[in-house]
This record gives sequence, structure tokens and C-alpha cells, in this order.
Amino acid sequence: GVLGSGDFARSLAVRLVSSGFRVVVGSRNPKRKASLFPAAAEVTFQAEAVKKADVIFVAIFREHYSTLCDLADVLVGKILVDVSNNTEVNHHKESNAEYLASLFPACTVVKGFNVISAWTLQSGARDGNKQVLICSNNQEAKRIVAEIAQVMGFTPVDMGCMSSACEIENIPLRLLPAWKIPIFLALGLFLCFFTYNLIRQVIHPYIREQKNKLYKIPIEVVNTTLPCVSYVMLSLVYLPGVLAACSQLYYGTKYRRFPDWLDQWLQHRKQIGLLSFFCAALHAVYSLCLPMRRSHRYLLIETAVKQAVEKKMTIWVEEEVWRMEIYISVGIIALGLLSLLAITSLPSIANSLNWREFSFIQ
Amino acid sequence: GVLGSGDFARSLAVRLVSSGFRVVVGSRNPKRKASLFPAAAEVTFQAEAVKKADVIFVAIFREHYSTLCDLADVLVGKILVDVSNNTEVNHHKESNAEYLASLFPACTVVKGFNVISAWTLQSGARDGNKQVLICSNNQEAKRIVAEIAQVMGFTPVDMGCMSSACEIENIPLRLLPAWKIPIFLALGLFLCFFTYNLIRQVIHPYIREQKNKLYKIPIEVVNTTLPCVSYVMLSLVYLPGVLAACSQLYYGTKYRRFPDWLDQWLQHRKQIGLLSFFCAALHAVYSLCLPMRRSHRYLLIETAVKQAVEKKMTIWVEEEVWRMEIYISVGIIALGLLSLLAITSLPSIANSLNWREFSFIQ
Amino acid sequence: GVLGSGDFARSLAVRLVSSGFRVVVGSRNPKRKASLFPAAAEVTFQAEAVKKADVIFVAIFREHYSTLCDLADVLVGKILVDVSNNTEVNHHKESNAEYLASLFPACTVVKGFNVISAWTLQSGARDGNKQVLICSNNQEAKRIVAEIAQVMGFTPVDMGCMSSACEIENIPLRLLPAWKIPIFLALGLFLCFFTYNLIRQVIHPYIREQKNKLYKIPIEVVNTTLPCVSYVMLSLVYLPGVLAACSQLYYGTKYRRFPDWLDQWLQHRKQIGLLSFFCAALHAVYSLCLPMRRSHRYLLIETAVKQAVEKKMTIWVEEEVWRMEIYISVGIIALGLLSLLAITSLPSIANSLNWREFSFIQ
Repeated sequence: GVLGSGDFARSLAVRLVSSGFRVVVGSRNPKRKASLFPAAAEVTFQAEAVKKADVIFVAIFREHYSTLCDLADVLVGKILVDVSNNTEVNHHKESNAEYLASLFPACTVVKGFNVISAWTLQSGARDGNKQVLICSNNQEAKRIVAEIAQVMGFTPVDMGCMSSACEIENIPLRLLPAWKIPIFLALGLFLCFFTYNLIRQVIHPYIREQKNKLYKIPIEVVNTTLPCVSYVMLSLVYLPGVLAACSQLYYGTKYRRFPDWLDQWLQHRKQIGLLSFFCAALHAVYSLCLPMRRSHRYLLIETAVKQAVEKKMTIWVEEEVWRMEIYISVGIIALGLLSLLAITSLPSIANSLNWREFSFIQ
Repeated sequence: GVLGSGDFARSLAVRLVSSGFRVVVGSRNPKRKASLFPAAAEVTFQAEAVKKADVIFVAIFREHYSTLCDLADVLVGKILVDVSNNTEVNHHKESNAEYLASLFPACTVVKGFNVISAWTLQSGARDGNKQVLICSNNQEAKRIVAEIAQVMGFTPVDMGCMSSACEIENIPLRLLPAWKIPIFLALGLFLCFFTYNLIRQVIHPYIREQKNKLYKIPIEVVNTTLPCVSYVMLSLVYLPGVLAACSQLYYGTKYRRFPDWLDQWLQHRKQIGLLSFFCAALHAVYSLCLPMRRSHRYLLIETAVKQAVEKKMTIWVEEEVWRMEIYISVGIIALGLLSLLAITSLPSIANSLNWREFSFIQ
Repeated sequence: GVLGSGDFARSLAVRLVSSGFRVVVGSRNPKRKASLFPAAAEVTFQAEAVKKADVIFVAIFREHYSTLCDLADVLVGKILVDVSNNTEVNHHKESNAEYLASLFPACTVVKGFNVISAWTLQSGARDGNKQVLICSNNQEAKRIVAEIAQVMGFTPVDMGCMSSACEIENIPLRLLPAWKIPIFLALGLFLCFFTYNLIRQVIHPYIREQKNKLYKIPIEVVNTTLPCVSYVMLSLVYLPGVLAACSQLYYGTKYRRFPDWLDQWLQHRKQIGLLSFFCAALHAVYSLCLPMRRSHRYLLIETAVKQAVEKKMTIWVEEEVWRMEIYISVGIIALGLLSLLAITSLPSIANSLNWREFSFIQ
């Protein structure tokens, strides 16, 4: 059974019908709404629909839950599936599913399907996440809903009892939460170093010698900024471990919680490390692009012409040659080691290593 | 029990023996065939072998199934495992397993092991796919065969009831089906653009100015062709979504199936997108190789010599310098964004994102 | 219950308490040790602790197992979890868990948690391996310990009966075992080819013409060495397959075990192939860096100046131009094919291909 006639209710009905279930839709105006649902789904009044169904998807807004109170008698003993979402994180004190359960104490409430969009229901789970997070205080009801999800082509995940409902309702609202702080950190560092390098490489020569070096901004200034960001980020990956060790030494115990800011920092290390690797890789790409530039070509020809006109045959500076050779080979090695770190932070690789191997590579 | 003495039957016997099972092989000529099987397997006449075994692997061709009809009496109540494959997709109307079940209605038939090659059975599943797809109408028989597969070191996958047998039999014959259309599309586009660029960069200067620019074919012409292919492919990823939306607006409903060609196109978007990314990455590699070429070096020196002889000191063209700097930095950003798209299309990454995060990145 | 007061015992108690279990710690000196454990854990004498607990973690060294013999009476019917590790592979003939089981025949011994470090227990399994390998002769005891592991946030893996204990105890000591031989092989090959190229490119011109080419060592010599190593390694991937086929032809049977050295070699093919790909990729990166070097710039300018002074206008050598263009484009194609091989050796990709597709790409 499906209660409601919104977008989600319709998609749910379409999907359930195409997965081979018999579907009854309960609406307050069944005649007008019937055309919206697939022909195989029976559209009828709410009370009738509830009587015919064992599992009822409540696809209406939390604000309208109380309108169902008239149906309290026919709902006794049924399984209600709460599929609702909120528009804000922790909007209400109580999760929608717990609120529904408090309204209908004679029903078994299961939270689920809220992480799935109407579009995914409609078109099938081809890309993105196929997981349907389910929680309930009743094991049997949870098992039944999990089976329905499986037949519909999703992967049910048991999230335990009803107290997880709040967490499940917040999931569709989160947007890469673990990446927010590291990305702002990287952007902040980039801006600082970019300003410094801009002053040093472009503005200073212009003021002192009136030389126009503006063409350096898009590539050369960015290219000197990236490794600075990468270095600082890499040090920020290993610094909190040292701070944690110091805190343990200071308090003389390993069995004391770290302060919150240190705990947060320790938890974001992986993302900071990956952004550090990303900056280093970008620096490699930019550096490889340097000889492709027209400015590189012009500077080369200008030097050659100047030398030829002055009949100077030697230009070789042994020290500069060696410096560059060593810069490049050390750079390649450093990038290789960072890649290794990045690869072992992939979950599928990390799972195939034991603890000693993981620490060895780190 | 194993019926048959072909390559697959032998490998199966070897593997079963080495996994700790007691194996009886049924052959029509047990004396001559005994030497082919491992010593631990008992080789005897078919009727005797069938009597001694509970689970019987039927490792003979579909054409010879009818020769087993003499054994119908002793086969009653046994589990028959159909391991056969076809040489063509949908060769027979009925799947081999269903045909076997119709010949022996008193037996329980399980389809399985056909996706495993004799070589994998022999050497153990080190690389490639370890999955054994199993289907049967009898849950208990399916469970027994799944357990045998597990002990043999494979991963049994339940494919439901016997009607899936046809699908399972077609799997070993398929060869990257989702990639065929996108690859032909990419090759076709490449040929078109390559011809256009060849005419423009090599043939036209030869006819007009008698200049021999043939050396440009292997790298420069390919390098100007690749981004064109990449752009067109990328637009082909997002175009069907727009067409689908238009079709929905035109018909005024989301609950109508798309025409077949649009549905096919929508399903191939991921492969088209990955090929677009592949072309873009190849373009990046080719571009980075440009300054390594001998022709680049010669052109540079020739320009320098010409300038020096004519005593022209300035060669700097501000506009060209800026154009190249911007080309390169925009190219790096575009490749970075395409990489992000490609990474989120990896199943393991996509599973860790919720729907909102996935849409955000797309 | 936890017996012992070492680092591991403490971390275990912390984790168990924070996962919601009631914990009793048995110590020989409970008053002195109580401060080391979290407040929620009850620290008492060993005999008392054992009486109160159903599942007892034995977090003491193998050498001290015999000191528990006094507790034999109270231990009857309890589940003992052996969490011990060895310092050397196969240090004792009998695994620690089997030794414990032989000391207390009236107890059920379960091996487990030894692959988890005290630090992981403490801080939660954020990175690295979360798997807890468990084995026991008693299914029920194994199930109980697996559930405890799950509640503690780990992934229990059933490793079968007690005879696997030895294998489980050796796991934390192994360090990338499959990579040792291939890495030494690659290093050996690198040294040989590096010496050859060093003599050819640096020492020979110095002795014959007194030319100082030492600057070539960090990049150019390494760059000519890498593809040699890559080629030899790639051939070592496919050679054992040919040798295996020859051995099968010679003995006239596929059903004979290969000699041990060939079997070892066949098993290391994947790692050898990945190292070959790694060397090829490194060669690509080094080659792309060549035009960035200062020495490249100086050589170019010197040639230009020389030409200009001698008023030689043409420098173009058609053969050299073509050779380089073809080298580069063939190199890109070869790297592309090697990348494809490397990608299909990823487990998650390999699992989505059937046998025919895997062989096709290989």
C-alpha cells in the first residue's frame, strides 16, 4: 500500500508494480488522481487501501501525519514505512519516523527509502548509491521491508533500531561533510601563497624595473604556489599525530580523550592528505606544460640571438644544470611516494593489507 | 558424480578431488578413460557412478543429453548440475538446463559452473572472475551446489529460478557488450576528424606551397583530432538527458517509456563519457610530448639562426604568449573536471556518495 | 572478562566498555593495576573475574599460559579467546591457541583479534584493515566472538576450525610477501642495466674524449635504464606460461603438477607485471621531463649560436625527425596497452568481466 499522491508516491508505485508487487494506492480523491498512477496499481480511498495492504508506505509530509489519525483503527497491526525527508538538518527534535510511531502506537514503524530519490525509483538504480538504509525496533518488520527493497533492485542496509532514524533522515541532506574543512583549508592556503608569489614574481619586477611580466600569472605563479600548498597540507597530515603523542606524554596516559579540535583534525587527515597529493600532481602537470608555452620558445630564441650577435659560444653553467637535474629527479621520487600513500588510502587496497604492511607504507 | 570424460569433466574431477570431495566418474568406457582422471577419483560405468553419487555434474554436450535416457531410473531424485555452454547466443529456443529438466522430470536440475573455464577449474581462481552463477527451481538443491562451489574456492551467486538459465548460458559468450557501440562511435568520429585535419594540415600546404609536412601525421594531426572527438563524445553524454526531458515535456508526463533508441543511448552514457575522458587524457599526453620531438628542436634552431643572421632582436608577440598560457591552464582545469567525473563513475566511489553528492559532482 | 594487564588488555577493556559491554578484568594485583583501566571496568583477582565472565580474553604471553592452570576449575565451560601473537613466523610447533586448548581441555578456545593492534582497538578502526580473523572448533563459540567483534566495529571473518590458528598467528608478521621476489628482481635488473648505461653514456665518452657528461646520471641514464627493466619484466610475465605449456606438451598431460620454481613464478606474474607497468610509467614521466632541464636549454642555444655564426641555415634531418615522431607515438600506444592490462588486474574490475573478456584483454 502507498498513502499519498505526490511525486515520490507515484514513483514508488511505478517501481513496485514493475517489480511484480500488487499495489494499492490510498488517496483522498481517488478519481482525480487515478490517472497519475500506473494502470496495474489500484487507486482507492485511504481507508480501503489500508485495509487491503499489509505494508504501507507513508509518502506524505510530516506536517500531514496527523491527518491520518482517522485511519488509526484500520492501521492497527500494519507495518508503516516512513519515507519522509527533512529540508534542514535536525529540523525537528524528534525524527519523522519516531513522531509517526508516537501517533500510531499500535503499528510497527520502519524507516527507509528516504535516501532514494523519486528519479532513481523511476529509472532504476544504474549509477550512484543503491543502498536503502533501514531501521526499526521490530526485527521481523525490518526483514520484510529489506526483502521488498531487494526485489526492487536496491541494497538494504540494516541500521539497527529506531533511534538511528534521525541519522538516516539527515543523510540525504549532507554534502561531502568530511571534505568541507580540508577544501576551505586548501583554498585559504592557496590564496595566501598565490598573493605572495604574485607580488614577488609580477608586481615587484614591474615596480622596480618596469618589466611587464603579467603573462606569468596563469601558469608560472600558480605553478610555484601549488607545491607550497602541498607541503603545508602534508605537514598538517602528520602534525596532529605528534600533538596527540605530546598530549599523551603530558597527561601521562593514553586513556584520556583528546580535545575536540584535535579529534576533528585527526579525523580529517585522510582528506587533507588526498588534497596534498592532488596539489602535488597538479604541480607536476603544470611543470610538464612549461616548455610547451610560447613564452618559453620566445625567451629561448631571444637568448640564442643575443649570444650569436655577441659571438659568445659558451653558455653552460654547471651549477644550474645540476640543480635542475636534481630538482626534477627528487620531484619525481616525491610524487611517487605520495602516490603510494594515496593508493593505500583507497579502501579496497587498505583492506588487503595487514596492520604492519599499512604502517610500513605510511 | 561427474558424467562425461571431456576436458571440463576432467578439470572438474581434479578440482573436486583436491577440494576434499569423494568423486565418482561415469564413463561409457571406464577402462580406457581411467588414466585421464586423478587417481583419487573412481572411474566406472555411468549407471554405477550415478547410483553412488547424490550430486551429478552433467559434463556432456546438449546434443548427447538424450543418450542419458537409459539412466532415467537410477537418476530419480538426484541433483543434476548442468554445466554446458552454447556456441552462439540464444542458439536453442530452450536453455540447455531447461531441456535437461524436461528430459528428467524426476530429477532436480541446477544450472551452474558454465561461466568457469576448464583452465580456471584446473589452476584455481587466481585472476578474473571467481563468480559461479547458479539457478534452480529447488532452493535446497541450489544451496547444496552453492556450498560445493564455495568449498572449491569460488563465489556462488544466486540467480533465482530456472528461467534465468538462458541468461546464464549467454554470459560466457558476451564480449564487453556495453562497449561495442561507444567504441565504434569513437572510431567513426576519430576517422572523420582525422581526415579533415590531414587535409588541412598536410595535403593543403603540399598542394598550395609544395611543402612536405608529412612528418606531422603521427603526432600533430592525431593530437588535433583527439580533443575534437572528446568534445563531441562529451556532448553526446549530456544530449540524451536533454532529449529525454524534451520528450517528457512534449508528452506532458514522466510516466511514459522513452523510445528504444533513446533508452539505449541513455544506457551507454557512462561508456561514452569514459571514452571521452580517455581521448582527453590522450590529448594531454600527446601535447606534453610535443617539445620532445626532433622537429620541434629543428624549427626552434632554424628560427633562431634566421633571426640572428637578420639581427632581429625582438620576436615576442604578446597576444600569442597570452593565448598559449590561457589555452594550457584552461586545458588543465578541463582535464581535472573530467577526471573527477570519471572517478565518481567508479562503482566503489559511487557507493560511498549519497544521491545529492553524486548529482552535485555530475 | 579480560585476563592480563598489558597494553593490549587495557585497550581491549577500553574498547569493550565503550562498545557497551560489561567488563571484568582479572589481575594478580588488582589494587595496583585498577588505575590503568577505565572506571567502568571492574578490576579484581583472576579467579573472581573468571567466575563472573562467560567470554574471557586471554591477553597474556604464551610463556605465562601455564600460570593460569590454578584457574582450571573455574574456567570449565568458559569461552577463552586467544589474542596472542608470535615474534617470529612458526616460532613454536604448535600454534598458541592450540597450546591453550591443550592446557584447558574443558574450555572452548577461539583464536581471534590478534591481527588488530592495541592502537586500533584504542582509536577505532578508521584506516587499514578492519578484519578480525576468527577460528575455532566450536561453531557456537565462534558465533559469539564474531558478534562481539561486530559490535566493537570490526568485520569478523570465519577462518574455519582450529587448525587455521597457526596461519592466523603468522599474518601480523608477514610484510607484503608476494612483492618481495618481484621487487628484488626489479632492483637487480635496474642495477645491471644502470651500470651498462653508465659505462656507455658517461664513463666511455670521458675516457675516450675527456668529455664531462656526469650531469647525465640522475635523469638521462635512469631514463634509458627504465624501459629495459620494463621490457625484461614484461617478458618474465608471459614466459612462465609458455614454459608451462612446454612442460605439458613434454609430459603429454595437463594433470601433472608443475615444478615448484615454475609454480612460484606463475604465482608472482601479477606483481611482476605491475612493476613492469610502474617502470614504463616512470620512463614516460622522465621522458616528459627532458625538455624542462637546463642542460636541454643550453645545448639548444649552443647549437643555434654555432649555426648562426657559421651561417648554416638548414639543420633539418628528415630521418631523425621521423624516427622521433614514431618512437613517441609507439611509446604512447604501448603505455596505453600496459595501462589497460594494469587496470584489468584490479580485483574490482576483474570481477565485473567474464572469462572471455578477461582473456581478450590479456
